[in-house]
Amino acid sequence: MKSPRIILLAHGSSDKRWCETFEQLAAPTLASVNNAQVAYMELAEPSMDTVIKEGVAEGTTEFRIVPLFLAAGRHLRKDVPAMIEELEKVHGATIQLAPPIGENPLLGQAIRDVVMLQLEETPA
Amino acid sequence: MKSPRIILLAHGSSDKRWCETFEQLAAPTLASVNNAQVAYMELAEPSMDTVIKEGVAEGTTEFRIVPLFLAAGRHLRKDVPAMIEELEKVHGATIQLAPPIGENPLLGQAIRDVVMLQLEETPA
Repeated sequence: MKSPRIILLAHGSSDKRWCETFEQLAAPTLASVNNAQVAYMELAEPSMDTVIKEGVAEGTTEFRIVPLFLAAGRHLRKDVPAMIEELEKVHGATIQLAPPIGENPLLGQAIRDVVMLQLEETPA
Repeated sequence: MKSPRIILLAHGSSDKRWCETFEQLAAPTLASVNNAQVAYMELAEPSMDTVIKEGVAEGTTEFRIVPLFLAAGRHLRKDVPAMIEELEKVHGATIQLAPPIGENPLLGQAIRDVVMLQLEETPA
C-alpha cells in the first residue's frame, strides 16, 4: 500500500505575496516529507480539487490534509470537511483531515522564539 | 523610558474554541516576555482598542503589535495599519507594527517538525 499523499492546506489569497510567504513556510516540510505538496482552500491555485485530481490520475487514492492554520474556526470545522466529502465522491479518493498545525505545542514555542528574536533585533 | 508593551495580535473569531487555541499558542510568549498580552483584530475581546486604552490609562504610551499571522494579506497590509493610525490619534499612543510571525524561518521549521510528528503518530 502506498503512503498517503500529504497536502499542506493553506487558506489562499488573491495577494501573490501571501502565497509566496506560505510557500516559504512549507519549504522545509516539502524538503523533508516525501510525497507532499501545497494546496489552497480558496482564492489561489493549486486548489484541493486540482491536487487530488492530479494525484488520482497518478495512481494515488489516499490523501492526508494537514492544515497550515494556527487554529480551527469555521473553515476547518465546516467548509473544509464539506469540500472533502465532495472531493471523495467526485474523485473516488480517501481523504483524512489532520488537526491544524497550531494545535501542536511546538508552534507556541516557535512563536515565543520569534517574538524574543524580534525584541533582540529592535530593542526598546 | 519604559519598554513598549507587546500586543500579540490574533485575527479573532466568534468561535470560543478558536480563541482558546490562540491563548494556548500565546502562552509560552506571555510566560517569557514581560509586559505582553493578547488582543484580537475583530470578533473577540480584548480588542486592540481595549488593550491600548488600558495601557495608556496605566501610563504606557509605546506599543508594539506582533501579528500572530502566518502571512500578511489584506488585513495586515491595509486594515491593521488603518486601525493603528486611528488608535494612535484617539489614545495619543505610539504603535509599531512588527512583521507577522510566519515570515520568520523558525515557523517553517516548526511546521516541518509538527508534520513529521503527525506522520510518526499515525503511520500510513
